[in-house]
Amino acid sequence: MNSDTAQPQAEAAGGPPLGWQGIRDVMMDRIRTRHYAPGALIPNETDLAAEFGCARATVNRALQELAAAGFLERRRKAGTRVVAEPRRKATLEIPLIRAAIEDLGAAYSFRLLTREVAPPPPEVRAALRLEDGARLLHVVTLHLADAVPHMVEDRWVVLATVPAIEAADLTRDNPNEWLVRNAPYSEGTMRCRAALAGAMAGHLGCTARDAVLVVERATWLDGAPITLARQHYAPAYGLTLAL
Amino acid sequence: MNSDTAQPQAEAAGGPPLGWQGIRDVMMDRIRTRHYAPGALIPNETDLAAEFGCARATVNRALQELAAAGFLERRRKAGTRVVAEPRRKATLEIPLIRAAIEDLGAAYSFRLLTREVAPPPPEVRAALRLEDGARLLHVVTLHLADAVPHMVEDRWVVLATVPAIEAADLTRDNPNEWLVRNAPYSEGTMRCRAALAGAMAGHLGCTARDAVLVVERATWLDGAPITLARQHYAPAYGLTLAL
Repeated sequence: MNSDTAQPQAEAAGGPPLGWQGIRDVMMDRIRTRHYAPGALIPNETDLAAEFGCARATVNRALQELAAAGFLERRRKAGTRVVAEPRRKATLEIPLIRAAIEDLGAAYSFRLLTREVAPPPPEVRAALRLEDGARLLHVVTLHLADAVPHMVEDRWVVLATVPAIEAADLTRDNPNEWLVRNAPYSEGTMRCRAALAGAMAGHLGCTARDAVLVVERATWLDGAPITLARQHYAPAYGLTLAL
Repeated sequence: MNSDTAQPQAEAAGGPPLGWQGIRDVMMDRIRTRHYAPGALIPNETDLAAEFGCARATVNRALQELAAAGFLERRRKAGTRVVAEPRRKATLEIPLIRAAIEDLGAAYSFRLLTREVAPPPPEVRAALRLEDGARLLHVVTLHLADAVPHMVEDRWVVLATVPAIEAADLTRDNPNEWLVRNAPYSEGTMRCRAALAGAMAGHLGCTARDAVLVVERATWLDGAPITLARQHYAPAYGLTLAL
């Protein structure tokens, strides 16, 4: 292996054939050194397979990883281009809150603290883009891990979109589980920020001046607003994403 | 439409053919009412297309959405099953910090506050699973939006994995950009939590008792540790994910 080649070549020539990781590394070098310029098309898989002396599937595996990593952009007909500004993605798995707590090895329980049909406050109307006069169910639920407060959820549900929740027994299925099972969403946003516990301190068993993670989720079904949930987590808790 | 049928049927019979959203809703009803039991196989696409009187591609589109929503699990040969415990996914786009700040409509700048080769503290060794005696580059960078502090990043880079960074001019390309362009990762984790600003308050222009979002990212290339970065964001900042 000639490690000081200025222009990276297919190092397979003369050596053992490269695996997909080796091909990925050579291709990455070519992107990094701008042998393939930002925005430029790279050779097609058949030509690369011939160059590297490997199966087309091996090249495909390497390119897939570089595309997932945000360095290449693949279009079915237009071919594969070098991305000018790479963006990575992180993925968060959102289990049922019951499952999340059981995954921590703790026993799950919950308490329904509030249940009322009430006019939505302005920030809820704005976040869900509600029309005037919309009727909403307001529920506040405390979720506990081994009987210790884990998260308090303040949730507004749009009754025009999810009328069945008005008759649901939310002391049996908590609102989170009832909605997952009964009101699927097609799109939504989620925002994570830090806040002082403030008025939530009493529920969370901490002081008002502790920093806590706040997660806000808003969801829609084909444009119809379903729910806005604001979750305050106990101070020690963080969210883990996969890169 | 007979909206009070106990067992949801293909409502197309006698009415206009359902679009993919209509098929999705009927299938969702069948999952919800346990007409399709948790863990059970559902009929194949050809049979469903015959039942709904539509193209197989229309059924496929509906099932794809229910799979993306976490209600169905599709396996190429084993068929499509009802997921017993639905888990949703949220996706976070991670642009370069420069691009993230420019996306806010602000001018980007940065200051390299620390650059030293130093022994890693115990929590860095643990997070990256380092061997004894590993040499690391420690860099602290303040990122600004319109000259106002936005985020301070405390980063450790494993020199055995990324030797070239020792010679890099990190006052020209900040460590974040240099690594994105020169040290791709294959796997990693990211954790978001809340903390009091504490010692970071001076950099962030807030008080030590403000709550700030902390993001920790650790990355590897095929098992070799690359870097651990701990980012403290200015108080107002939150992360937005797509559901």
